[in-house]
Amino acid sequence: MKLASLKLGKDGQLVVVSRDLERAVAVPSIAATMLDAVERWSVCAPKLLEIYERLNAGAAADSFAFDSRQAAAPLPRAPQWCDGSAFLNHGRLMETAFKVPPVPDFDTIPLMYQGASDDLLGAHDDVPLPDEADGIDFEGEFGVIIDAVPMACTAEAARAHIILLVQINDVSLRTLGPREMKTGFGFLQAKPSSAFAPVAVTPDELGAAWESSRVHLDLEISWNGAWFGHPNGSEMNFGFDQLIAHAARTRRLSAGTVIGSGTVSNAERSRGSGCIAERRAIEVIEQGAPSTPFMKYGDRVRMEALLDGKPLFGAIDQCMVPANANQE
Amino acid sequence: MKLASLKLGKDGQLVVVSRDLERAVAVPSIAATMLDAVERWSVCAPKLLEIYERLNAGAAADSFAFDSRQAAAPLPRAPQWCDGSAFLNHGRLMETAFKVPPVPDFDTIPLMYQGASDDLLGAHDDVPLPDEADGIDFEGEFGVIIDAVPMACTAEAARAHIILLVQINDVSLRTLGPREMKTGFGFLQAKPSSAFAPVAVTPDELGAAWESSRVHLDLEISWNGAWFGHPNGSEMNFGFDQLIAHAARTRRLSAGTVIGSGTVSNAERSRGSGCIAERRAIEVIEQGAPSTPFMKYGDRVRMEALLDGKPLFGAIDQCMVPANANQE
Repeated sequence: MKLASLKLGKDGQLVVVSRDLERAVAVPSIAATMLDAVERWSVCAPKLLEIYERLNAGAAADSFAFDSRQAAAPLPRAPQWCDGSAFLNHGRLMETAFKVPPVPDFDTIPLMYQGASDDLLGAHDDVPLPDEADGIDFEGEFGVIIDAVPMACTAEAARAHIILLVQINDVSLRTLGPREMKTGFGFLQAKPSSAFAPVAVTPDELGAAWESSRVHLDLEISWNGAWFGHPNGSEMNFGFDQLIAHAARTRRLSAGTVIGSGTVSNAERSRGSGCIAERRAIEVIEQGAPSTPFMKYGDRVRMEALLDGKPLFGAIDQCMVPANANQE
Repeated sequence: MKLASLKLGKDGQLVVVSRDLERAVAVPSIAATMLDAVERWSVCAPKLLEIYERLNAGAAADSFAFDSRQAAAPLPRAPQWCDGSAFLNHGRLMETAFKVPPVPDFDTIPLMYQGASDDLLGAHDDVPLPDEADGIDFEGEFGVIIDAVPMACTAEAARAHIILLVQINDVSLRTLGPREMKTGFGFLQAKPSSAFAPVAVTPDELGAAWESSRVHLDLEISWNGAWFGHPNGSEMNFGFDQLIAHAARTRRLSAGTVIGSGTVSNAERSRGSGCIAERRAIEVIEQGAPSTPFMKYGDRVRMEALLDGKPLFGAIDQCMVPANANQE
């Protein structure tokens, strides 16, 4: 099943989207918003699935063309956003290049930061940023949306709480990150609003590509139209089940919490990278200095995961722009 | 003006509370929830103030006794929670005692972490925690609730966005904090749900005690009935205006964002401490080792700020309890 939120108010309008992403149906009688559906998932999911099957069969009344430019993030205002860094290859490259000491217990305890979740961006939304000199970067990730998870949930029990999968651009400001890491208080200014692919999908849509709580698909990334990488989600060192258990260690997680994988990263260098910072780290390791600059205003990043050559979540394709100091 | 959220659904029911915290009035025709009122503050505030004045004059129809035990956090599900550490005395004590290197730029750039905001607790709610061995601690803080703040807002411009003041217990798990700080990714497991005093108040309620974007009041803290400290909010090294500007450097802030001061802490030792960790740091400095243990299940903490001897926000008075692994 595929769901999206069309831009409307703070939480968007829930629509069911056809498997090929061509058509959509509004479902106000089932749930007004995706958050509402996620909070009442056991009741709403069967009803939404019925609509989805009719839509795919070309038999849904009142369907309309799905325009991904009208899509907000699936949960534009999520209760919580916790982002892991579950591909250890990425961390190892960063540590090697920038000679930072390895994180304690990096291979047994997932790294995760608390992000802001009140203002998540749509797939084609411009990303407004205050200063081109902040080291503007993208991070290609996969993520999950969960229903309510009790405190101290185990990884095994967490699996049943994964109800939707999403694809994410975790926008990052690299000149601000290292100082924030040194404080020990973690990222805040270095992590402006993240953006999401148009459609959230149930795990069954992936078939064999959803295995061990990991997305076994390439994430195709291009920057201003040029290939940048196609790392595969299968090399995640911690599955989403483990990331959920980590987040729930000392708190219950509200339905609609989003958990991210961190930058998708593969050991095989020919697969490229999921973010500019990682490519620069490889340049430092191989050539002694970084040669790829960060993004400029007007630059575009495109991220897409295909399933058997067909669209899955739809594409993120968005532009970095200067923030208007007068915007509210 | 004083406002509270009675426990109802995820966002509570907005009520106007009398200055003496004795009476309340529901205001569904003005706004159903505090978040709704905060999002439409310029429209709602004058109407709420009219009710508040009638209530204080004993002339409000349909008023009822205000029971702070029925109060949720003012914003039980806030869009965002960013907590500063704006009392440098606290940081200096921690660094001296535990021989950690000083944070870079600690005196010019505020320290701030991103917290979870989806499940904030009421003043008398039990605090469910998974393990007594996690080093259970309280942190007495003041905070502000803001209306929508544009990206890159200056500290000067931020002042007009402070619409409500709150009082906070930032529950902390001290055995988990140091590891999370070392990762550079910041607090996550170390910061379970924070709790809030029953009532949020407009800054004008404080009179001269609201000055330079700081709360110039003692925060009286007791632990199992014994005095623990009464540090004053005036020694904040960064005002809330500066904290807001810090949070808004690379993002716009949604109406209803909560910004915390960090543990209230004074250089004068006879004023005690706002958290156990700070008392332990002083013990390390003065006696070579900490002698005060962290909290046990069943322990209570009480925090209250009085204005001219009268209740202002009402008291936080709550108990630490074991989480039920089966809760949802």
